[in-house]
Amino acid sequence: LLRSHYQEELGHISEQLVEMSGLAATALERATRSLMDADLTLAQQVISDDAYLDAVRRDVDNRAIDMLARQQPVATDLRQMVTTLRMSGDLERCGDLARHVAKLARLRYPAPALNDKLRPIFAEMSTTAVQMVRRAGEIVAANDAHGAAELMAADDTMDRLHREVFRILLDPATTMSAQATVDATLLSRYYERYADHAVSVALRVVYLVTGVWADEQLPGAHDHFLSGVPRSDD
Amino acid sequence: LLRSHYQEELGHISEQLVEMSGLAATALERATRSLMDADLTLAQQVISDDAYLDAVRRDVDNRAIDMLARQQPVATDLRQMVTTLRMSGDLERCGDLARHVAKLARLRYPAPALNDKLRPIFAEMSTTAVQMVRRAGEIVAANDAHGAAELMAADDTMDRLHREVFRILLDPATTMSAQATVDATLLSRYYERYADHAVSVALRVVYLVTGVWADEQLPGAHDHFLSGVPRSDD
Repeated sequence: LLRSHYQEELGHISEQLVEMSGLAATALERATRSLMDADLTLAQQVISDDAYLDAVRRDVDNRAIDMLARQQPVATDLRQMVTTLRMSGDLERCGDLARHVAKLARLRYPAPALNDKLRPIFAEMSTTAVQMVRRAGEIVAANDAHGAAELMAADDTMDRLHREVFRILLDPATTMSAQATVDATLLSRYYERYADHAVSVALRVVYLVTGVWADEQLPGAHDHFLSGVPRSDD
Repeated sequence: LLRSHYQEELGHISEQLVEMSGLAATALERATRSLMDADLTLAQQVISDDAYLDAVRRDVDNRAIDMLARQQPVATDLRQMVTTLRMSGDLERCGDLARHVAKLARLRYPAPALNDKLRPIFAEMSTTAVQMVRRAGEIVAANDAHGAAELMAADDTMDRLHREVFRILLDPATTMSAQATVDATLLSRYYERYADHAVSVALRVVYLVTGVWADEQLPGAHDHFLSGVPRSDD
């Protein structure tokens, strides 16, 4: 009976993590739209909706800590709790990053924050990153230890797009204001970090299933400076 | 006897967290020096030394997870383990951010990455951030729930410096290349995030001592856009 209650709680936590990934995906979709369309109302919505994602995160964490206290799990069950605390942190961060994008859109309103050269690249970054976090949710739901490789491949696409942003910013033919350069630098970093956290979620599922820490594979562990472009991962 | 073994392990973990804060402080000091002096050897050292900080982090995490499994802690002891896992993550990130600074110094070598207007501001950012992470280590060692307020005040200094960087970047009288603008934007963000993680460590001690989550106070929870300057906290 205790065991079945435990499984039920685990199932609930897993559902909440999937819910968080859906919320983070919607948040970035909308944030990108608010950025592209200079849509102040939508930007405001993304910013205020983030509180709900934070609340789900607190609830997940409290459940996990409560289960640690009451059920005294060991082995896989213990890993599940530790992993839950980390995945909830990653997904909450994704929400924060979507909020940052929306805040930049709001800050520049009614002007658009991105010029015509940059818009298609950021549109693709957003689509890729949103797909990644949705996929991360599916990987959590299915306890799929093999999904991480797929997300790391998608992360290579993000790297390529990130390089493309910097190529445009640094092109002598580009004439952008300092403000536009600062904004694009920060935005590119937000999308990149969002994607990194999606990869982290998938790698934590690897740990959960295999018991082996994948720290070395975490995006945070290997920052590449690609063709003169600073790429990092705090 | 079990209890005394537990206390001994706890003491060991606390010492390792203090060690991590010292390593993170040294890393940023050296990274800043490598940036200011365009010192390639020092930059390389910071980059390679980060692996040791990562190793201490893994060791701390393994000890905490092992204690969760063996000792089945509840209440304060359980909070101690959960908090440990989070503080080790914050301090490892500080090391990553110091490494990013060193990588940027290396990328621009033999040219200096910062111009004369920006250098004194970044020097002050570095001094402030390094003091913050050292103080965070003392707060962990002393289980000091009151230290967080002090670190949040220091974080206001970081905000002021961050704003000052952007004021210079966006000043029409400033003539900086796009590359220099991108570099300064990213560097400012690295120092800012480093300081945020130092504040997080102190707030986690608040949780440990009081049992109340200070999520609302975490730098990640309230990103201010100050006088048109994007300030964020992913």
